[in-house]
Amino acid sequence: MKLIRFGAFNNEQTGIAVGDKLYDTSAFGEDYNEHFFETDGLARLQQFLDEHQPALPEIPAGTRLGSPVARPSKIICIGLNYADHAKETGATPPAEPVIFMKSTTALVGPNDNIVIPKDSEKTDWEVELAVVIGKKASYVSESAAMDYVAGYVLHNDVSERAFQLERGGTWDKGKGCDTFAPLGPYMVTKDEVDDIDNLRLWLSVNGKKMQDGTTANLIFRIPHIIAYTSQFMTLLPGDIISTGTPAGVGLGMNPQVYLKAGDVVELGIDGLGTAKQNVVAYGAY
Amino acid sequence: MKLIRFGAFNNEQTGIAVGDKLYDTSAFGEDYNEHFFETDGLARLQQFLDEHQPALPEIPAGTRLGSPVARPSKIICIGLNYADHAKETGATPPAEPVIFMKSTTALVGPNDNIVIPKDSEKTDWEVELAVVIGKKASYVSESAAMDYVAGYVLHNDVSERAFQLERGGTWDKGKGCDTFAPLGPYMVTKDEVDDIDNLRLWLSVNGKKMQDGTTANLIFRIPHIIAYTSQFMTLLPGDIISTGTPAGVGLGMNPQVYLKAGDVVELGIDGLGTAKQNVVAYGAY
Repeated sequence: MKLIRFGAFNNEQTGIAVGDKLYDTSAFGEDYNEHFFETDGLARLQQFLDEHQPALPEIPAGTRLGSPVARPSKIICIGLNYADHAKETGATPPAEPVIFMKSTTALVGPNDNIVIPKDSEKTDWEVELAVVIGKKASYVSESAAMDYVAGYVLHNDVSERAFQLERGGTWDKGKGCDTFAPLGPYMVTKDEVDDIDNLRLWLSVNGKKMQDGTTANLIFRIPHIIAYTSQFMTLLPGDIISTGTPAGVGLGMNPQVYLKAGDVVELGIDGLGTAKQNVVAYGAY
Repeated sequence: MKLIRFGAFNNEQTGIAVGDKLYDTSAFGEDYNEHFFETDGLARLQQFLDEHQPALPEIPAGTRLGSPVARPSKIICIGLNYADHAKETGATPPAEPVIFMKSTTALVGPNDNIVIPKDSEKTDWEVELAVVIGKKASYVSESAAMDYVAGYVLHNDVSERAFQLERGGTWDKGKGCDTFAPLGPYMVTKDEVDDIDNLRLWLSVNGKKMQDGTTANLIFRIPHIIAYTSQFMTLLPGDIISTGTPAGVGLGMNPQVYLKAGDVVELGIDGLGTAKQNVVAYGAY
């Protein structure tokens, strides 16, 4: 299944994507949230579809998409998880996964605007494959870790590099600004992805390809990331773990290149769809 | 008002503390969560109390207390915000606030056990004054910041120093372990605290006083912290900002001292009550 959410920001309804059409599943009566995943919601949704799919209303073209999963308890990110990206930022590839957190207030839909924060000069892009957790995970083993995955989703881990790296403390200041986590278009359930370790991911700015990588180059693969993270904190159903970005971010260029109002960011991952974000100045949205 | 929550973990009901008695307000019909604070819940609760307080059932002694506020969208912490603590950890006092985040799955009640994580050898304590946000805050000014405060609560920002400082990446690995955020006993509404900048805060381990400070020594005061943080991410009603810890943590001692199973941690802040946590090994709870 491909899960979507649509409608007004913070008031989304649920749906599914089938081919290039979108259908309204709000008759199912539940949001795609922690409770949904915790109570075997994917199986229940499949059962609902088996009975009702032919009668579902089609969602009109042009309808806004929201994040395909409702606000999770947390968004965890893995830093420097592609060797080429670590190198371009001047960092040594890490000996064990680098974990940081993104404020969940950063979450927006896949085609929403990216808002450059006030006083920002270094807003940057990062195409990433994100994992959606399907059930509560604490101290899980690497061999069991994939049982805890509900699905996958395209994520732009938007980052303000000056806030992240030049303002003291941890990276959190530059990772959680409003609109800094466009997610979607859809969450693809695990069963629909043949080889998660061999997906191309790319990002362009104003039509120019900036990132073009493959998940084959992840330093730490998904089962390891889940097992590792679950040693430090309990993962809840619906939680997001974003697995890191390949080379090609603005920070890594010489001279560095950052987003400005009017720019258009497009990104995609094989099988997980594409997204397109217009960049606007603070106050313009 | 002094808000409490009581009953089984993750299934708490609401109440209030009056003097040394606790009363059940579950007839009010709402949890103390984001929606409550967002919809002027404190004023509505006061109105409910004006009508019903004499008839509220008393909560039996010995009833478990939970976190006095329901799981928030985020727990933000300010690092190194007392000069004496920065010094004891070998850090330079920061030029601007250090921000990090704590997984909300760490949240427990004030007298719950602290569980030492698996493979942990450096679990440490940090008594802190935490602020509960009362309404949505984005780019607020320092002069307006106190309008966004609902109240205050005692917090033990439990920290695993090896996970925090020796495992690469940001501090998040050592801050968000389960049980690492005991909160309470109660949230005191802002109107009941005379001088937030002059409260004594202390913590003892096995009866020995380890921390004994005053909020007069905060490097960055609460209005500045709120205004500053709201430049980087939107604060939601019910969010927690923990303002930092004074000197006297285990990391700062020579030789360093860390918690072990069987230890008893007690802590308190003037006007915000006291808490007592037993330390247990992972698997023992």
